[in-house]
Amino acid sequence: MGNLRSSGPEGVNQKERAMDALLEERVDNVGLMPMDAEQLRDYGHQMVDFIADYYNSIESFPVLSQVQPGYLHKLIPDSAPNHPESLQNVLDGEAKILPGVTHWQSPNYFAYYPSNSSVAGFLGEMLSAGLNIVGFSWITSPAATELEMIVLDWLGKMLKLPEHFLSTGQGGGVIQGTASEAVLVVLLAARDKALRKVGKNALEKLVVYASDQTHASLPKACQIAGIHPENCRILKTDSSTNYSISPDLLTEAILHDLGVGLIPLFLCATVGTTSSTAVDPLLELGKISKSNEMWFHVDAAYAGSACICPEYRQYLNGVEETDSFNMNAHKWFLTNFDCSALWVKASEANMVMDYKDWQIPLGRRFRSLKLWMVLRLYGLENLQCYIRNHIQLAEHFEALVAQDPRFEGSVSCPYVGDCGLCSSVVFFGNRIRYTFKTCGQVVTPRIFSLVCFRLLPHHNNEDDGNKLNHDLLDAVNTTGKIFISHTVLSGKYILRFAVGAPLTEERHVNAAWKLLQEEASTLLAGDPVE
Amino acid sequence: MGNLRSSGPEGVNQKERAMDALLEERVDNVGLMPMDAEQLRDYGHQMVDFIADYYNSIESFPVLSQVQPGYLHKLIPDSAPNHPESLQNVLDGEAKILPGVTHWQSPNYFAYYPSNSSVAGFLGEMLSAGLNIVGFSWITSPAATELEMIVLDWLGKMLKLPEHFLSTGQGGGVIQGTASEAVLVVLLAARDKALRKVGKNALEKLVVYASDQTHASLPKACQIAGIHPENCRILKTDSSTNYSISPDLLTEAILHDLGVGLIPLFLCATVGTTSSTAVDPLLELGKISKSNEMWFHVDAAYAGSACICPEYRQYLNGVEETDSFNMNAHKWFLTNFDCSALWVKASEANMVMDYKDWQIPLGRRFRSLKLWMVLRLYGLENLQCYIRNHIQLAEHFEALVAQDPRFEGSVSCPYVGDCGLCSSVVFFGNRIRYTFKTCGQVVTPRIFSLVCFRLLPHHNNEDDGNKLNHDLLDAVNTTGKIFISHTVLSGKYILRFAVGAPLTEERHVNAAWKLLQEEASTLLAGDPVE
Repeated sequence: MGNLRSSGPEGVNQKERAMDALLEERVDNVGLMPMDAEQLRDYGHQMVDFIADYYNSIESFPVLSQVQPGYLHKLIPDSAPNHPESLQNVLDGEAKILPGVTHWQSPNYFAYYPSNSSVAGFLGEMLSAGLNIVGFSWITSPAATELEMIVLDWLGKMLKLPEHFLSTGQGGGVIQGTASEAVLVVLLAARDKALRKVGKNALEKLVVYASDQTHASLPKACQIAGIHPENCRILKTDSSTNYSISPDLLTEAILHDLGVGLIPLFLCATVGTTSSTAVDPLLELGKISKSNEMWFHVDAAYAGSACICPEYRQYLNGVEETDSFNMNAHKWFLTNFDCSALWVKASEANMVMDYKDWQIPLGRRFRSLKLWMVLRLYGLENLQCYIRNHIQLAEHFEALVAQDPRFEGSVSCPYVGDCGLCSSVVFFGNRIRYTFKTCGQVVTPRIFSLVCFRLLPHHNNEDDGNKLNHDLLDAVNTTGKIFISHTVLSGKYILRFAVGAPLTEERHVNAAWKLLQEEASTLLAGDPVE
Repeated sequence: MGNLRSSGPEGVNQKERAMDALLEERVDNVGLMPMDAEQLRDYGHQMVDFIADYYNSIESFPVLSQVQPGYLHKLIPDSAPNHPESLQNVLDGEAKILPGVTHWQSPNYFAYYPSNSSVAGFLGEMLSAGLNIVGFSWITSPAATELEMIVLDWLGKMLKLPEHFLSTGQGGGVIQGTASEAVLVVLLAARDKALRKVGKNALEKLVVYASDQTHASLPKACQIAGIHPENCRILKTDSSTNYSISPDLLTEAILHDLGVGLIPLFLCATVGTTSSTAVDPLLELGKISKSNEMWFHVDAAYAGSACICPEYRQYLNGVEETDSFNMNAHKWFLTNFDCSALWVKASEANMVMDYKDWQIPLGRRFRSLKLWMVLRLYGLENLQCYIRNHIQLAEHFEALVAQDPRFEGSVSCPYVGDCGLCSSVVFFGNRIRYTFKTCGQVVTPRIFSLVCFRLLPHHNNEDDGNKLNHDLLDAVNTTGKIFISHTVLSGKYILRFAVGAPLTEERHVNAAWKLLQEEASTLLAGDPVE
């Protein structure tokens, strides 16, 4: 300022200052426009930096949020502002939000199943938000309908789905928000098809079959569709089939229902259950469904992604017998949430179709753009590497667990034939899998990138074991260093370690295991029984 | 290269070139990582520029896509690439996508209802995609649940919704994807509440009431919920009530249904119908619902936004009698699609609630962030200005139509009392509205930012009129200069001019009217009858 002042007569400086002030005032007065290309550019760049900085510092946050219920109400005013706030102010305000975020993208996130963000998926979301079209019918944005058909054909071919699921065949794919919506829309289609045949008052006779490992979205779909709760056959599973559906049990249930005048409507099988990645035997189940004229749906929400690798495609054997197939590209396939791919066999597909008739909502976002970005910016081979890398990391974790006698984990069968260690042999399609019940070291076999394990209970006291593992889960999660979740198998509280976050590397798996061992030692040391 | 070569001995240059090559190779080999903060930053900035450039050139695209069905299949390979493509390549590829886009954000978009993108909404989408959490329960990201409760309280207060819709009262708000999902979830809640009371086999007795102007999402919701089609009472409306529900007709229908042993379940009223922005009389309908113990839902998907202005709040009078209320922040409220705000009265709201139980899907995006951005970066007063500006532009268009005797449009009532021109007087809550049937210049009154109008038919021949207006719609839409849509009221084909795109200014409205006049002249000149 001193320099400026001395650079010319006082009058000029005053004029300059006045102009500066005016210019500043104008900018302030303009404020943020509803839409303006240059403001979007300016603010958009700031937001990109904010998000990139977030990823740079993601490991500094507790993975599982440590806030108490109601924390945010205490930090935020009771009503919206009358006047605009600056972006800087709002971004600073994110300091209030971030402690309440559970960081699904952290490399130390091993809970539930992954929900992948990726550079490509993020770009696709940006583009979709930028165009912001509402593609409920073809004409409202032809590219939205056509690109969706094309990329779901691409993905269907990567999964080697039968031709009748492709738009070039007798069916087609559609992007649903979630697997819950996918199973609901096909259940509704099956229901209405059956009711047209047997009469609209026959709803109370329709029966749906699934296992006790099937995702909770199926009972929810049944409730929405008005299937009577007592007509939802939840087939029991156990370790003798690695928690997959027993075809014999299914046949038995169907025969019983037919005997009392009920109508078998719908079977939901799972490839990679939420609990333990169990794989139902599609081929056998498909035959049973077909002979009973049931709709056969496959939920491969998580494990479907792995099936783009030839060595894992076998788990889909029998998919050619199904009526609909679903996998979540937003889980383990680098496509930001939400993007749940559903393929159906029977459709009215033609040159112009309106996706609004394939889903619950009317409006729909241009979600195919992100899948399009993912498939093109990574390519099939990189996607296969991505999957294999996570499975290798899970194998690595499995090996670590196996080396600590305090834990019970899973091991892959090292034998091709009957090893003598296995108490049961289960056939999946054309593949044989073994359980190792006799060796005392197997919770349930690891198939994909999820390892089920637990601390062994004292003196085989399962009550103790359940409490012990619950405490271990709590202990590691409250450190904020990792986030794992649990399941219950045959009444046992089991810990789940699901590898699948895009940033996870071997060092994160090693650190997680070290933490689990340390917390286990602390727990066991403090345990009066020990 | 020549310069470099001469700057030192040959050996050094060779070394430099080798290092350059190595560096390039390394970059190539690394490729795009699944997630990497610096790659996200680099690519993110490129995408921001791409989108900003799109908005800079948005007026150069035909508003309504002019492609033929199947155009994209011809331009795109049959399968996904094995190897990654560059971002530049993919963005260049957008040249294939963009012709198939109908540009909802164009200032010349006047079709259906608007679907607002905004700088703030776009930033919110970016942030949501960046964090990419799946907030199905409180613990999976406490901030996602708590911020949603807070911003829906904020918006509820802006709309002066009754306390029992706020989380601080006996209810709460939830963000659904669309109004279709909103009406479905409350219909399901009403259905299951009724069936618990009267028995699960009573589904065939439940009756749903709405008008012939109610959005198609209601019949779809009924179908999903298993309400028998013959139990969907579609009450007829006409110009005598400006296409709003007649309370007398409703009472009559309910009495008839009760008389034959049916059970009135659910009434859906609309504030601002899709067809013509008709407003149902909430106060009277509320009384009828209450005395018949029906669930009363209000769909204010489009017009709800206007009700943040005190002068439009009157259209919600009676909302205190309803059980649920819905407005789409993604329509005319600057919040990118999808963001449909639903408030319900009865809830299990407490400190920790899981939004998964308030919606069809399990997983959910962090959608409150974009509404949070919109409310804070614009503030209440700017949002009110935004709404008023569009309504003024619609009034302006209305005045232009009124000046051309070849057209029939709508005029607002200039009188406070009975003007003598009106053939009917309709009461909405505590407000009186007039229809101008006698003056021959009214299609239906304009209330918000939608103008219904049409070219007058020759010699009052309505068949001619319908074809004429259909042809006019086609003519203007195929120029690509504007995009308008149509409706049918009392058997007449009516043109709809909906103002609401964030970039629309008076010059766009003027140009649209000029185009409509020109195309009308061409049509009328070529018409043998004329």
